[in-house]
Amino acid sequence: MVKATILGKYEDLKKQVKNGLYRPQVTQIISDLYSESLSYLTPISKEQLISKVGGKQYFAFSNERKISRAINSGLYAPDYSNWEKFRSAMASDDLGKFSADEISKLLYTMAISFCACIDLMKDGDQKTTGTFFEYFIAYFFTWRVGVEPKNSIQILNVDSEDTKLPTDFIYNLGPKKPKFHLPVKTSSRERSIMLWAHQKLLDGVYGIERFMGTPVLLAETKTNKAKREVVEICLPEQWRVYQLYIAKLKRIYYLDPPTAYCELNKEFPALTVKPFSEFFSEWSELSPT
Amino acid sequence: MVKATILGKYEDLKKQVKNGLYRPQVTQIISDLYSESLSYLTPISKEQLISKVGGKQYFAFSNERKISRAINSGLYAPDYSNWEKFRSAMASDDLGKFSADEISKLLYTMAISFCACIDLMKDGDQKTTGTFFEYFIAYFFTWRVGVEPKNSIQILNVDSEDTKLPTDFIYNLGPKKPKFHLPVKTSSRERSIMLWAHQKLLDGVYGIERFMGTPVLLAETKTNKAKREVVEICLPEQWRVYQLYIAKLKRIYYLDPPTAYCELNKEFPALTVKPFSEFFSEWSELSPT
Repeated sequence: MVKATILGKYEDLKKQVKNGLYRPQVTQIISDLYSESLSYLTPISKEQLISKVGGKQYFAFSNERKISRAINSGLYAPDYSNWEKFRSAMASDDLGKFSADEISKLLYTMAISFCACIDLMKDGDQKTTGTFFEYFIAYFFTWRVGVEPKNSIQILNVDSEDTKLPTDFIYNLGPKKPKFHLPVKTSSRERSIMLWAHQKLLDGVYGIERFMGTPVLLAETKTNKAKREVVEICLPEQWRVYQLYIAKLKRIYYLDPPTAYCELNKEFPALTVKPFSEFFSEWSELSPT
Repeated sequence: MVKATILGKYEDLKKQVKNGLYRPQVTQIISDLYSESLSYLTPISKEQLISKVGGKQYFAFSNERKISRAINSGLYAPDYSNWEKFRSAMASDDLGKFSADEISKLLYTMAISFCACIDLMKDGDQKTTGTFFEYFIAYFFTWRVGVEPKNSIQILNVDSEDTKLPTDFIYNLGPKKPKFHLPVKTSSRERSIMLWAHQKLLDGVYGIERFMGTPVLLAETKTNKAKREVVEICLPEQWRVYQLYIAKLKRIYYLDPPTAYCELNKEFPALTVKPFSEFFSEWSELSPT
């Protein structure tokens, strides 16, 4: 029954977001999905995984048939009442009582719980978790910046009619205000160059860094299911080259920031990888440089 | 038995290409893979599919368990002796007896036969056909341009040691000679921006169009298995924008060129989509513009 509820609420989410992200109806579905995911996972056994990532421990939910993706034990804090407090704090626009660490744990737990449910319920389905995660992140981003995003941009065409190009989430806060380009992915892997390519496209159409690129990702973990080992797949040298030769991304936010990417903060070219929770405090100070 | 042979030869291919692509050992494996694929497919029944693509007809191989990807009936010409003749013509460097149409049919049949076998043998395996297709195309490209490719480039780093970046196939024919950047994919779909992004990267490192981008793709068909319908997934407006704002690709070659992309040849910005067979006659005349 819980399974049917989760998949049904996910379908509702896809319908509701068409009318706007930060709305009471969406808040309710996100709340329900979190609470149903916790109900689904509570009776399921946890299996410790072997971590090949320094300083991080992982487990997975596992039933007789399969195991979920790896979950960072240090970030997983399943407590529904925290979400109720956070939701109220969002509504009154005051997160003062929440540290960045607490926000990190809350958002990570909410996102990964839904993903773990789908991992156990469905086979080879990447789309459901990817789509959920997009709306989940965009919901918080929309609340924070206070405007609803667009999903397409107008392209000037001097020869014929202007055309619309589908994009990631685009936030235009108005004249002389910051503008954001928000791609959202559960992981980047061998497709990470697409983050920079989409930024380059916006730079070309609207001017360099007119829209600041602030992608949000979940994690870069990969589990070897036979060995029960978890690694983080990172290509920091490639990222450095993309940042030098394709376009500049202002930030790359993660719910579970990979260790190797956080090291990039220390070297030229500037490439700042951070927990997404920090966006909530720094967003209004971000500007094209 | 044939199944084990095909998978074994594929493993051999991956090993042999490490020592160079256009070599007798690789020719032998590609020959064997073609002949074994035809043996595997001969007893398997063909099922006509419903084509939603104007002017093209498709079928699929189908056994009791599943069906293969869609195969363009107009390009499928399974005749091993044609390959023997073509192989000899390659060795004596004279394709004069083969029209571009004949070459198109031969290469398409060889590539799609292997892919159809893997479709029927394995579940959810995109990697085997993707890797085979890369080596298959690079084999012919290498023969034609006469030099072996590299798979990484040197990146200048003024602060520390130079680093190597893995890339698609890179052909450097020498000073004042053409240089090619060859990405190979069985289809591009929603990842097509990566073709332009990698070109942009090479443009940044070596200068604009120092390496001409000449990606080769198999097809853009998608089969709705329930309805047995075939469509071509094309996003020509997006391609036009990539060609304007990210980088210039010199050619995009296909074994089965999608109708909607071939229309791009007629409009600004120049974006020339062609059968890969034409590369064999035009390659030496290509130059950055």
